[in-house]
Amino acid sequence: MLIIKIGGGKNINFDNIAADLASLVKAGSKIILIHGASEKRDEIAQRLGIPTKTIMSPSGISSVLTDSDAIDVFLMAYCGVVNKRLVEKLFAHNINAVGLSGVDGRLWQAKRKGAIMIKEKNKVKLLKGNLTGRVEKINDHLLKLLINSDYLPVISAPAISHENEIVNTDNDFATAVMAGALGVFEIVYLFEAPGLLKDFKDKKSVISQINRNELDDMMEFAEGRMKKKLIGVKKAFEVGVKKVYFGDGRVENPITNALKGKGTIIS
Amino acid sequence: MLIIKIGGGKNINFDNIAADLASLVKAGSKIILIHGASEKRDEIAQRLGIPTKTIMSPSGISSVLTDSDAIDVFLMAYCGVVNKRLVEKLFAHNINAVGLSGVDGRLWQAKRKGAIMIKEKNKVKLLKGNLTGRVEKINDHLLKLLINSDYLPVISAPAISHENEIVNTDNDFATAVMAGALGVFEIVYLFEAPGLLKDFKDKKSVISQINRNELDDMMEFAEGRMKKKLIGVKKAFEVGVKKVYFGDGRVENPITNALKGKGTIIS
Repeated sequence: MLIIKIGGGKNINFDNIAADLASLVKAGSKIILIHGASEKRDEIAQRLGIPTKTIMSPSGISSVLTDSDAIDVFLMAYCGVVNKRLVEKLFAHNINAVGLSGVDGRLWQAKRKGAIMIKEKNKVKLLKGNLTGRVEKINDHLLKLLINSDYLPVISAPAISHENEIVNTDNDFATAVMAGALGVFEIVYLFEAPGLLKDFKDKKSVISQINRNELDDMMEFAEGRMKKKLIGVKKAFEVGVKKVYFGDGRVENPITNALKGKGTIIS
Repeated sequence: MLIIKIGGGKNINFDNIAADLASLVKAGSKIILIHGASEKRDEIAQRLGIPTKTIMSPSGISSVLTDSDAIDVFLMAYCGVVNKRLVEKLFAHNINAVGLSGVDGRLWQAKRKGAIMIKEKNKVKLLKGNLTGRVEKINDHLLKLLINSDYLPVISAPAISHENEIVNTDNDFATAVMAGALGVFEIVYLFEAPGLLKDFKDKKSVISQINRNELDDMMEFAEGRMKKKLIGVKKAFEVGVKKVYFGDGRVENPITNALKGKGTIIS
């Protein structure tokens, strides 16, 4: 089985991804797809007059501030438009897709964070009421039920807290926890870059191979969202994943290319 | 098995419905829930500056004009906010809910309508490009898979056309077709009225019993959306349903009350 995580950036080419997926499914691969929708979320939030508020952790990792209104926008973008439009696209390629969120059937069960520390104008302060959490437990029964009947699950955040609240969660981290729960050995992460770049301004500086033990050292090359992705990858190796592929989600045959090592392979 | 359809009106009390459902599930009932989200759809459309356009059929039945933007709003409201918030509420009552749309796994397969006749300013004219369809086929395999594993499916429109386009569809009609496909004998429809009213301005004029053969005569008492509901009910009897309950979705114990005959029973 293969888990593929697609970023939610503007230039991710869902048509190319669907076509490539179809060839893999036809060849007999069992696949789970996880997708982001950050671009659509920001667009809807802006149109509704609810701008996305970003917060920064003391260690310099940015994330989205999530109150109940923000969760609603999240649901509109991730579970509404992007999830269902992706399922629609997969049907056109004869893929038997079922769209779900981490909420459904308690697929992604998260520990809600209490008050969190944030960094604002170089000061560290405490922030309460943030509806976010970290995925700890997976309903692998529901996933196996679908996969064993030849459905391809198409999943996105949010998750559900142990106290039954919808909470925002990091998709990349949840992907890793899911791989562990299902005993999946390989994950492909597709995003808007050709791979992990040594210099994020130089598209040709792709690091093609990384040893899993070097991941901490790689943090220095990672900008913004990529830091979070590397935390997800670290988690993946902790729960038994053997190989992680980073690939460009904007090109033709994005998955096949990533599997061939045209991006970054971490093992 | 029991199918319960909840309207998407403003005053529908989802908390009461969830509590009532919990008691039925605890007593061993297998249930499928279908929900509307018309109020939330209109609200989002308005906030996004995409007002809902209603059209009128030559026979006087109103429905929503659906272009691709309208489908996106539909996905935000039905599959996004309302579906997932309802699933969240059901968890609080220990109900193992899984939210799906008619799109997922081709759950509701619809025949897309071609150009349709509409009535505008007392003139009948042809309208093209309307993304609507009528549900003809159900993926009963997916539903049984979930139900037999004790998941409670929470389903809403839209549906998927035979040509793999997301299309708006009438929830009440789809509910009836689904009952037929699953061999379900009873459907409860909950909405913002105490039952079918003889005089829609007089809340005390509830018709408590209707013979299924009198449905056509009842059309004269039906206002607006209720006409569509009665068409759905007619379809339900055609596909093998034995009893349909209309009940008030705003009160305590709305399902139990409807089953006790406090609204309208059609048989």
